[in-house]
Amino acid sequence: MKVGIIGAGMVGSSAGYALALMGIAHEIVLVDQNHALAIAQAEDISHAVPFMSSTVVRPGDYEDLQGAGVIIIAAGVSQKPGETRLALLERNTEVFRSVLAAVLPIAPDAILLIASNPVDIMTQISTRISGLPPGRVIGSGTILDTARFRSLVGRYLGISPQSVHAYVLGEHGDSEVLAWSSAKAGSISLESFSRQIGVPLTEALKSEIDDGVRNAAYKIIKGKGATYYGIGAGLARIIKAIVQDQRDVLSVSIVTPDVVGVEDVALSIPRVIGAAGVVADLFPDLADEEAIALRRSAQILKERVDPLML
Amino acid sequence: MKVGIIGAGMVGSSAGYALALMGIAHEIVLVDQNHALAIAQAEDISHAVPFMSSTVVRPGDYEDLQGAGVIIIAAGVSQKPGETRLALLERNTEVFRSVLAAVLPIAPDAILLIASNPVDIMTQISTRISGLPPGRVIGSGTILDTARFRSLVGRYLGISPQSVHAYVLGEHGDSEVLAWSSAKAGSISLESFSRQIGVPLTEALKSEIDDGVRNAAYKIIKGKGATYYGIGAGLARIIKAIVQDQRDVLSVSIVTPDVVGVEDVALSIPRVIGAAGVVADLFPDLADEEAIALRRSAQILKERVDPLML
Amino acid sequence: MKVGIIGAGMVGSSAGYALALMGIAHEIVLVDQNHALAIAQAEDISHAVPFMSSTVVRPGDYEDLQGAGVIIIAAGVSQKPGETRLALLERNTEVFRSVLAAVLPIAPDAILLIASNPVDIMTQISTRISGLPPGRVIGSGTILDTARFRSLVGRYLGISPQSVHAYVLGEHGDSEVLAWSSAKAGSISLESFSRQIGVPLTEALKSEIDDGVRNAAYKIIKGKGATYYGIGAGLARIIKAIVQDQRDVLSVSIVTPDVVGVEDVALSIPRVIGAAGVVADLFPDLADEEAIALRRSAQILKERVDPLML
Amino acid sequence: MKVGIIGAGMVGSSAGYALALMGIAHEIVLVDQNHALAIAQAEDISHAVPFMSSTVVRPGDYEDLQGAGVIIIAAGVSQKPGETRLALLERNTEVFRSVLAAVLPIAPDAILLIASNPVDIMTQISTRISGLPPGRVIGSGTILDTARFRSLVGRYLGISPQSVHAYVLGEHGDSEVLAWSSAKAGSISLESFSRQIGVPLTEALKSEIDDGVRNAAYKIIKGKGATYYGIGAGLARIIKAIVQDQRDVLSVSIVTPDVVGVEDVALSIPRVIGAAGVVADLFPDLADEEAIALRRSAQILKERVDPLML
Repeated sequence: MKVGIIGAGMVGSSAGYALALMGIAHEIVLVDQNHALAIAQAEDISHAVPFMSSTVVRPGDYEDLQGAGVIIIAAGVSQKPGETRLALLERNTEVFRSVLAAVLPIAPDAILLIASNPVDIMTQISTRISGLPPGRVIGSGTILDTARFRSLVGRYLGISPQSVHAYVLGEHGDSEVLAWSSAKAGSISLESFSRQIGVPLTEALKSEIDDGVRNAAYKIIKGKGATYYGIGAGLARIIKAIVQDQRDVLSVSIVTPDVVGVEDVALSIPRVIGAAGVVADLFPDLADEEAIALRRSAQILKERVDPLML
Repeated sequence: MKVGIIGAGMVGSSAGYALALMGIAHEIVLVDQNHALAIAQAEDISHAVPFMSSTVVRPGDYEDLQGAGVIIIAAGVSQKPGETRLALLERNTEVFRSVLAAVLPIAPDAILLIASNPVDIMTQISTRISGLPPGRVIGSGTILDTARFRSLVGRYLGISPQSVHAYVLGEHGDSEVLAWSSAKAGSISLESFSRQIGVPLTEALKSEIDDGVRNAAYKIIKGKGATYYGIGAGLARIIKAIVQDQRDVLSVSIVTPDVVGVEDVALSIPRVIGAAGVVADLFPDLADEEAIALRRSAQILKERVDPLML
Repeated sequence: MKVGIIGAGMVGSSAGYALALMGIAHEIVLVDQNHALAIAQAEDISHAVPFMSSTVVRPGDYEDLQGAGVIIIAAGVSQKPGETRLALLERNTEVFRSVLAAVLPIAPDAILLIASNPVDIMTQISTRISGLPPGRVIGSGTILDTARFRSLVGRYLGISPQSVHAYVLGEHGDSEVLAWSSAKAGSISLESFSRQIGVPLTEALKSEIDDGVRNAAYKIIKGKGATYYGIGAGLARIIKAIVQDQRDVLSVSIVTPDVVGVEDVALSIPRVIGAAGVVADLFPDLADEEAIALRRSAQILKERVDPLML
Repeated sequence: MKVGIIGAGMVGSSAGYALALMGIAHEIVLVDQNHALAIAQAEDISHAVPFMSSTVVRPGDYEDLQGAGVIIIAAGVSQKPGETRLALLERNTEVFRSVLAAVLPIAPDAILLIASNPVDIMTQISTRISGLPPGRVIGSGTILDTARFRSLVGRYLGISPQSVHAYVLGEHGDSEVLAWSSAKAGSISLESFSRQIGVPLTEALKSEIDDGVRNAAYKIIKGKGATYYGIGAGLARIIKAIVQDQRDVLSVSIVTPDVVGVEDVALSIPRVIGAAGVVADLFPDLADEEAIALRRSAQILKERVDPLML
């Protein structure tokens, strides 16, 4: 499958590197307003290919996206000093409007994969602007928060993150909700497993993990200025599910008709992803306080996106 | 890691083929009383290698197992006409006694992976004979039944088997127990997910899946005389968890101190597998009738193995 | 990509097992006159999937091949006592005629991958019957002989078979030609490398390797009755090159306009394989005696196929 | 295998990301003087793991390198304004002296993989300081230039880079030598293949490729400030050959007794890499002008390193 990446910064290029190393895409086209950057990233990634796969990696313009099955949008502008969040969002909406106007006629059948932050807002805006069905405009959402959650739980309990089945719901951001009550090790509850192995899952430990998930990005940004490897692999993982029509369950953000009573808002819950994009949802069983927190997260997003959707 | 395979029939060779294709082992030694068979299988598998990995595959004698990290035992004799099951078991116990006497001095640090049927009985006997800690004598147990269970559930619900987290417990055989009550799609109950997508998990459907899992081997044996690809991949999967110290959760059989009140019996529950073998158990939450069925399965095995353990 | 496999015996099923383990195909359909066999093989292979990939494996009829990108033909009848080779070939031609008549209307865009022996003859007949361009009717040819050649050379010289670049040319059978003169370790001649490491490539050693390649199948057949793992992986390798549009160089058989003066004959030389099938040839530089031997091999095939092509 | 990475900048972390995505190492320890950077990189990479493998990634100190099988050294200081190259080298030699003094007692059996530039010089210095056998102190050398060479040739000739067997020799830097005369497509000469497909390999085209290889880094640096994905994958590739004892042929730099008459100098030629490090060399057949150029490259390196080795 041909994959387009719009925005050749660290997130877009880390996704491209992962896609090339794993041989998930057979062609990758990097598009960036800064064409020298797109060329440099494509060259650098393409030198990784002869060691591992046979993916063709090249820089391109919008017209080179013809035939793409998935297009990652990792573009956007940065906050100016003194700029309000709303003003920034309005500028980014303009960027997306022009990107989508260029992309949609060229690649009308592509699934859009939104990586720019605030990812839930940008996903909802992209769905509206594009007019595509919600299942074909997918925000990376909490896929990474979910990975961090599993990583930390696995580390504490001494099992592989891949055997931890737990999800982060709602906004990819401060209001996100760790779904502890439905978290599993294999098919059993974390409570039960932690009791069996004598590592009690205390409130203190849960709070430490919650903090670790919620503040992971800040910690990374403090040390290196930005996060990109985790999200790059997360984007590659979503595309693998699409390319191979896996129907795997991943927590991603799409516009959802009703989330605990909040209508028509883009946020993350576990969803089934295959060749057609998101093909089903797995709405988790929630404890009361989790349902309240998720409703609050949905409301926050709704209030933030509504002024932009006029 | 070097992997030894004792018994170069279809099960042992299918495991070797999977290990070579996936590059999980870097060396594979096939040992068989029928040395011409071991040579032929090693040659045939080794011709697959240049396409995919760099595993060295060769036939050998017991002394070639020196340094092996895992040894698969897929050897055994077949039932003679008129022979009782107990008489057959006694003959197979003799085979294992002589295999273990040859193997243990050569590869004292290897993890033993038992594939011969009845696998739970042979695992318990091997643990006793070898004197190794239970976590280092692992029977393939219900790893395959679990795969069949996930495969069928995934097919009915339209999701990847890899997103179905469900286990078959107890004996690898007629008394095995499908743990429906703890089965999950992602992190939610199958009931909940099937309701959400409008594919109700009726008793009729569950019974059909139960039958499909329980009788899969018979169906395959009817069509082709024996089963080997599924179990070959299952053995390779267990070894991957050991080689990469994954600490993944897989349902395998080891001697367990207490299973629903039955003491000291080898059967399958989900267990954490890493470089040291089985390092922890995940005893699932069971519905009452599942606990009763598992206890019955444990008792059946216990009664069958006890006469052999004197 | 969807892959069809016609003929669910050991070769077809070993190919299906490799395709599923490696996740090369996302769907595999097994078709066999013996429908119980197709069901059993599909079930057995599908139980391997939950451990490794997300390939869907199922039995089917010809109409289930709709949309297949590649179809392996591994079908055919066996020699009856007293039957001449020509009579056997005529019967197999009839089998292929009926298979192709069923397949071509259903999957007109599929690349055909011929695995039945004598593979060069069956490839040429399939090309003629189907009317497809030669690059889309590919016989597995000497892909396996080439793997054996590299395997043995690598073993003698102490390097990975994947760093040995050497090909077996011509017929997949007794008249095949080991292209010693152009064989390389990395990019240098075997002569040069063997001199550097002090393992002289004597005529005796070359003759031993030649014998090992040429008689590998006999040795395997003697020990286990048939060969299937090597060829199964070889078929999977060819399909990987097609699925990922790799443009890799593999020695396969297609109808070739001119081979050392022999016209219009199917045999193996190194060829570039991508999404469209065979897209270019790499005719090797040959020593005089190799060119003579290849011409002889081409003539033998030509004489054998001509009576069948009326 | 446990892999240590000293220097958690973009090169070290890109290597760690590739190792984790491919599951090549089962544990990765990142060490950096800037401990916050090591923490941030380890966190970011570890979030990629739950999607793809089960590698454990963590920050650490030198003592955490105990038991490492390979240690990448990607550390070093940058040129100060006005500083001579010799002065810079002397400062970097001091850095390496202190790194090696800390590492060698902790991980005496590790293979050292040098990635800091000028890589040939730093490899030779590390060999001298460590006192290890040359085959266990490996510089990444021209592994990346070789990848670029294959990538460009493959693009022009329409074949997979993995079917191009060609090497860049000598210094990783301006005096490097593209070994055109021994370059192969499959097992045949590029000349022959390019003639067969009607894409003549003109001097102009060769010169364009030579320029593309030689100046790839400059082009990338111009667009994004530094190169890291290509070299990151190259380092992962070398480690894969070590972990799996592949005995693959890769162009890397080690101290070599005699290169076209220049004695005891570290530079790149194709070498066989396995569990023990570099286990053999494949000195390529060279055209006269290539031999002269390689000798010149060796002399340049020799003159540069000699003042530092007192």
